[in-house]
Amino acid sequence: MEDSDLTLAMIVDAHRRVRDHIHQTPVMTSSVLDREFGGRLYFKCENLQKTGSFKVRGATNAVLRLDSGKAARGVLTHSSGNHAAALARAAALRGIPAHIVMPRTAPVSKQAAVQRLGGRITLCEPTQMAREMAAALLQEATGATMIHPYDDLHVMAGQGTTALEFLEQVPDLEAIICPVGGGGHLSGIAVAAKSLNPAIRILGAEPAGAADTARSIAAGRIVACDNPRSIADGLLATVGRQCFSLVQRHVDEIIEVDDAAIVDAMRKIWQIMKLLVEPSGAVGLAAALKLAARLAPIRTGVVLSGGNMDLDRLPWQVSMNPWRSPDPKCR
Amino acid sequence: MEDSDLTLAMIVDAHRRVRDHIHQTPVMTSSVLDREFGGRLYFKCENLQKTGSFKVRGATNAVLRLDSGKAARGVLTHSSGNHAAALARAAALRGIPAHIVMPRTAPVSKQAAVQRLGGRITLCEPTQMAREMAAALLQEATGATMIHPYDDLHVMAGQGTTALEFLEQVPDLEAIICPVGGGGHLSGIAVAAKSLNPAIRILGAEPAGAADTARSIAAGRIVACDNPRSIADGLLATVGRQCFSLVQRHVDEIIEVDDAAIVDAMRKIWQIMKLLVEPSGAVGLAAALKLAARLAPIRTGVVLSGGNMDLDRLPWQVSMNPWRSPDPKCR
Repeated sequence: MEDSDLTLAMIVDAHRRVRDHIHQTPVMTSSVLDREFGGRLYFKCENLQKTGSFKVRGATNAVLRLDSGKAARGVLTHSSGNHAAALARAAALRGIPAHIVMPRTAPVSKQAAVQRLGGRITLCEPTQMAREMAAALLQEATGATMIHPYDDLHVMAGQGTTALEFLEQVPDLEAIICPVGGGGHLSGIAVAAKSLNPAIRILGAEPAGAADTARSIAAGRIVACDNPRSIADGLLATVGRQCFSLVQRHVDEIIEVDDAAIVDAMRKIWQIMKLLVEPSGAVGLAAALKLAARLAPIRTGVVLSGGNMDLDRLPWQVSMNPWRSPDPKCR
Repeated sequence: MEDSDLTLAMIVDAHRRVRDHIHQTPVMTSSVLDREFGGRLYFKCENLQKTGSFKVRGATNAVLRLDSGKAARGVLTHSSGNHAAALARAAALRGIPAHIVMPRTAPVSKQAAVQRLGGRITLCEPTQMAREMAAALLQEATGATMIHPYDDLHVMAGQGTTALEFLEQVPDLEAIICPVGGGGHLSGIAVAAKSLNPAIRILGAEPAGAADTARSIAAGRIVACDNPRSIADGLLATVGRQCFSLVQRHVDEIIEVDDAAIVDAMRKIWQIMKLLVEPSGAVGLAAALKLAARLAPIRTGVVLSGGNMDLDRLPWQVSMNPWRSPDPKCR
């Protein structure tokens, strides 16, 4: 058994561990989007999850399974995104410290979210090397356990609980599309869903500007992108080593979508479904619409993975409502 | 029995009639908002309702109860807002024409929504007199039945079904706050909820710039606003005659909130709950936060009444994401 062998048993165990601490997020449908797609779509709303993304599943599982001696020394990660908030919350649940290394350029709103959840932030220069050095120093000083955002079996097991719920809510799903960045969510979902139903199709949806997973699958080895760029800022990471092995074995296909399609899908989810998703969270719908001709005949599940974004910055032109302070007169 | 006597039996009957044609919308909670409020809030998500607002409840009830002779001649209304789309959908369900008089200044997106639902639009000048004349001419020409957006017992009975569901989903609610414009939704909810639990408190939330209901209650007669203005564009109508009588008898209090508080509440719902609500739909939360000191000790329900708005116009300053078309290289 190699170290990348994630099993259904581990995912079921993770679900038992985290279920009382997270939302069972709803599955929503939209007749308007179904008409456009030409079939039936089921949306798993992880944007409505605690802390606003699925990341809380994996972080909570990884933190709760630590033995008490290790846990007492706290946990640690470097992240400017959803994993940071998820880890801070998971640590707070257990009453242990969460040390979060963030680049000093991280949006103030994300820093504030981590702080509100009790995370202890260490700012560093916005380079990979500075992050890793800051994390290593902190680990030495505190003895905290590093919880990787995706390339960690217990994190992946937690993320896989999305699929356990999804298949309980819609038992006859025939395909699931999930965004892929580092690959933790996609791996967990693939193992869970294929174990329960080997016939189900699992598709990864990847931004064309950060398509390392698609290229890695084609090459048979991990091929990083030099300069990944996409509006889907949660999906820029290179696929993890353990994740890649699982994706190779359990995922049927990676679909690349360009940023225009991602923005279009995101706007449709806002406008039609009245759900706020972040760009990364809309990549699954973009992929579903791209493959509509093939997928429309089968019952397709789409994971809306997160909803955290800066409402002062949107990927379309917006004008202020031309509204003035009221001065009404009543007769 | 006066003509304004809406009863629980009528609302239960409406629910039986419409329930298979609408969503039972979810009730959501937010631990972050609960902390700010200092108590427990329950949100009834009518922004996730079919056509994006509660209006589909009343319109569907009014259309489905017509006898077949009347129904065959179609239905008619003048509205530029959510009632127009709701009536178009209700008519389409029954396969009858819906004639919608809209001001020629109505947003293209709202015209498109009505058309997509099969409504037949007649454009008119954007004055009350032009609307009423156009509607009268159409009624003469077609024999269609006028379905008023709020001052109609069957419409109010349909809107009251929101409360039947809400109290089934959260049986021990102690207060419900609902936005008030024409008063149809508030009346229906008040009659339903007070009939089921006379101790429940029912509060109307009204924009300060269109506070005709609050002033009418104070005056003991309907006092219209000359020039109602608010970002909550769905709540500018003057309270209806029948609605006013019901509000007088069954609503405990009307709370005025200014537009800054409405925008603040709307943004919180977007950012924290990941739900898209229109400004009118956020007025209930603005009122709850204004009365937090009094309401925090009791289990308070807030109706998020709708989610239809133009995403190109937001009531805060937004800059484009500084993102450029990607040109990544993979090694």
